[in-house]
Amino acid sequence: MEIRKTAGGVTAAKGFCAASCAAGIKYKDRTDMAMLYSSQPCSAAGTFTSNVVKAAPVKWDMRIVSEKHPVHAVVINSGIANAGTGESGMLLCEKTAKEVGKQFDISPFGVLIGSTGVIGPDIPLDKISAGISAMKPRLSDSLEAGTEASRAIMTTDTVNKEFACEFELPAETGDGYVTVRLGGMSKGSGMIHPNMCTMLAYITTDAAIDQSLLQKAASTVIPDTFNMISVDGDTSTNDTFLLLANGLAGNRKITEENDSYRIFCEALFGICRDLSIKMASDGEGATKLIETRVYNADTKENARKLARGVVSSSLVKAMVFGKDANCGRVLCALGYSGPNFNPDGIEIRMSDTKEAVIFFCNGRAQEFDEEKALRILDGNSVIFEVDMKMGSECAVAWGCDLTYDYVRINGDYRT
Amino acid sequence: MEIRKTAGGVTAAKGFCAASCAAGIKYKDRTDMAMLYSSQPCSAAGTFTSNVVKAAPVKWDMRIVSEKHPVHAVVINSGIANAGTGESGMLLCEKTAKEVGKQFDISPFGVLIGSTGVIGPDIPLDKISAGISAMKPRLSDSLEAGTEASRAIMTTDTVNKEFACEFELPAETGDGYVTVRLGGMSKGSGMIHPNMCTMLAYITTDAAIDQSLLQKAASTVIPDTFNMISVDGDTSTNDTFLLLANGLAGNRKITEENDSYRIFCEALFGICRDLSIKMASDGEGATKLIETRVYNADTKENARKLARGVVSSSLVKAMVFGKDANCGRVLCALGYSGPNFNPDGIEIRMSDTKEAVIFFCNGRAQEFDEEKALRILDGNSVIFEVDMKMGSECAVAWGCDLTYDYVRINGDYRT
Repeated sequence: MEIRKTAGGVTAAKGFCAASCAAGIKYKDRTDMAMLYSSQPCSAAGTFTSNVVKAAPVKWDMRIVSEKHPVHAVVINSGIANAGTGESGMLLCEKTAKEVGKQFDISPFGVLIGSTGVIGPDIPLDKISAGISAMKPRLSDSLEAGTEASRAIMTTDTVNKEFACEFELPAETGDGYVTVRLGGMSKGSGMIHPNMCTMLAYITTDAAIDQSLLQKAASTVIPDTFNMISVDGDTSTNDTFLLLANGLAGNRKITEENDSYRIFCEALFGICRDLSIKMASDGEGATKLIETRVYNADTKENARKLARGVVSSSLVKAMVFGKDANCGRVLCALGYSGPNFNPDGIEIRMSDTKEAVIFFCNGRAQEFDEEKALRILDGNSVIFEVDMKMGSECAVAWGCDLTYDYVRINGDYRT
Repeated sequence: MEIRKTAGGVTAAKGFCAASCAAGIKYKDRTDMAMLYSSQPCSAAGTFTSNVVKAAPVKWDMRIVSEKHPVHAVVINSGIANAGTGESGMLLCEKTAKEVGKQFDISPFGVLIGSTGVIGPDIPLDKISAGISAMKPRLSDSLEAGTEASRAIMTTDTVNKEFACEFELPAETGDGYVTVRLGGMSKGSGMIHPNMCTMLAYITTDAAIDQSLLQKAASTVIPDTFNMISVDGDTSTNDTFLLLANGLAGNRKITEENDSYRIFCEALFGICRDLSIKMASDGEGATKLIETRVYNADTKENARKLARGVVSSSLVKAMVFGKDANCGRVLCALGYSGPNFNPDGIEIRMSDTKEAVIFFCNGRAQEFDEEKALRILDGNSVIFEVDMKMGSECAVAWGCDLTYDYVRINGDYRT
C-alpha cells in the first residue's frame, strides 16, 4: 500500500477541528493557545517525559490515557509552562478541563492538556478560560486552522511543524477500500533530548483502531523517532506525545496486528520521523542538521545509544558549526555513550548525499581530503555513519550544531 | 594535624624534578612537552578514563600501574593527542618509554606517558625523542621548573594549574615528626565531564606509603573531586590521574589505615579539590564557576548524580552566563539526572557567600527578589544548593557557564 504525503497537519484527518487565539499569557502580538476538537470521541494513546519531575499536565494526560477515557479535546498553551509538580499545578489542569467540559458539554476527563514555555510563574486561570471561550467559535476543520494551531504552540521554534499523509485500508463495509488520514503537529527546539523533552507532539487520525493497538503503535514508533533527537541534552518536565483516533475514516477496525496495523504503523513512523527531523533542524540556534547512522551494532538499544551519543556531544555539535572535521570527537563520543566495543574494529565516515570521507578505521584516524570534508560541512545537513561491525542492528539519531545563537537564546530566555 | 598550603606544584615534594621544552609537535612559540623525574623509584597509583575508547598512553599507564612497576619518569606532550587505539599508538608509547629508558638508564616500564591535544594525526617520534634529549639537562627540583611543566601541558587552558601542601607525620626513626609534601599539576578545560576526561593530573609526594594504600587513597578521593567536575559532558579518551610517591620524606611508612593514612587522604583530597575547582573555573570560554551542593540525599551515589546533573545541564550553564535566574532549569536538570525523588519534598536555593534566594519549595516555584538574584549571578561563582530531605548524604559538583567563547573555541579547534 502506498502512503502519500498530503497538505496540512492536525486537521487533515476527518472530524478534527482546530482553533487558536492570543490569550495574552506571556507573549504579546501572537497566539499562545491552541485547541483540537473532535465531536466524535477518540481513543487516545500517549508517551510522556522520562524526567522524574513530571509537570501537572503530564500527570493529568497520563491519567486520562491510562484510564482509557474517550477524548474530545486537547487544550495547549505556550509562553509559560504549567510545570508545577504540587497541588496548584494539578488544580489548574482540573479547572481548565472543567471549563472546557462546561463550555462543550463533555466530561472533563475527555480533555487533554499541554503546556510549554518558561518554567516558573503561575498561569492565570482567567486568561485560560477566556482563551477557551475565544477559541470555541473559531474551531474549524480547515487545513489553515491546523496550521494556525501549530503556530500557537511554538516557543523558541523558528518555524511551525506539521505533516500529514494518507493511505488506503479495507472498508468497514467489506466493499473495497477507504482513505485513512494521519496528521500531526509538534513544537520543540530547546530542552530536547532523547526520551521526550519540551517537545509537544499531537497526531490525529480518522483510523478505526483498538486503543491497545493505538498505544502499541505509539510505543513502537517513538523509540526510533522522537526519542532519537537531541538539541541540548536537557529532558524537560512537560514532554508529551499524544495520538488520537476517532474512527471516522470508515475502515474495518484494526483489532489485531495484521497488514492494516502494519501500514498504520508505517505511516505513523513516517509522520513521527518527519516531525523529529523538523525539530532537530530547528534546534535553538541551529544552522545544520546532524544525522548519525549506526550500522551493524550488537543490539538495537546499543545502536540507539551510540547514535544518540554522537548527536548529543557538545564537541561534535560545535565542530559541525565551525566546519572543523575533527574526527576524534566522533570516536570519543561513541566511546562514552555507554555500549562496549573494540575501537580497532569500527569505521567512521562523514558524508552528505553526494560524497563521503573516511575518518577512522583499523584503530586509527585516517588522512582524508580536507576540501571534500569542507564541502560536506558546508551543506545544511551532515551525516556521520558508523559501522560497528559487531552485529546487524541499526539506528538513526538526529541533532543540530551548537552555535552562538544557542547561547544567546538560552542565556536570556525569560525576558 | 594541620595541613598547610605551600608554594609550587609537582616539584614541591623532595626528590622530584621537572623540565619542559618546545618540541614543535604542533604549537609554535610555546612549550609542548613536560617531564617529571625522581631518581628514587616511586610507587604509582592511577585512575583513568571511563571512555570505552582508551588511548594508547592510557593503556600503557594502566599496565605500568597495575603491574606495580617502580616508576622514575613521566613524559607528557600537548598539541596532538596520541589517541590511537590500535598498534601505531601503542608503538609510539613503547618507543617513547624506550627512549627515556635509554637516555636515563632505567627500565622502559618505569616511564609513564601522557598525551593531550587534537585527536587525529600521528605524532612524529623524532620530535618526541628530541624533546626528551632537550629536557634531560634541564631537569630541576626548583618550584619554577614545576610551574613551567604545568604550563607545557596546557591546551585550551587559559591559566596553568598547580597546588602544593605539607603536613607532619611521625618519623621513620621513631624520633618526632618529619614534614611530608604533596604537589600537583593538572590541565583540562574542554572535554571535561565526570569520570576523568581530557584531564591530565599528576600529583607527587615524598610520603612513604604502601602502593596498595596509595591506590586506595586515590580511588577514595577521585569520586568526590575530579569526577565531580563537568565542562561540556564530553569524556575524553586520554584522561589520566597519576599519583607518585618516592618515600623521601622519611616518615614511618604508611602500611595500614591509621591516623597517618587519614591525614594523607585529607591532604590528597585538598589538592585534588583545589585542582578540580581550578579546572572547572577555567572551562573553555567560562566566565563563572558553578558549584552545586546536594544535601540530605538518600545515597551518596544519588547525591553525586544530582549534583553533576545540575552542573552538566546546558540550559543551567547558559542561564548562568546570561544572568537569568530561571529556577525551573535547575529543577528540570535534577529530574533527569537519574535518581528518583518526590519534587514536592525538595528545596532549591541559589546563593553566593553572602546571600541566597529560594527558588523552589513545597512543589512550586517561589517568588524571589530579582535584584538579589542578579547580584548573586553577577559574581564570579554561583552556588546552587539542593536539599533533598530524603537522607543524610551530601555531594558537591563544579562546572562553569556556557558562553559564546565555548562555541568559538570548539567550532574551530584544529586550526
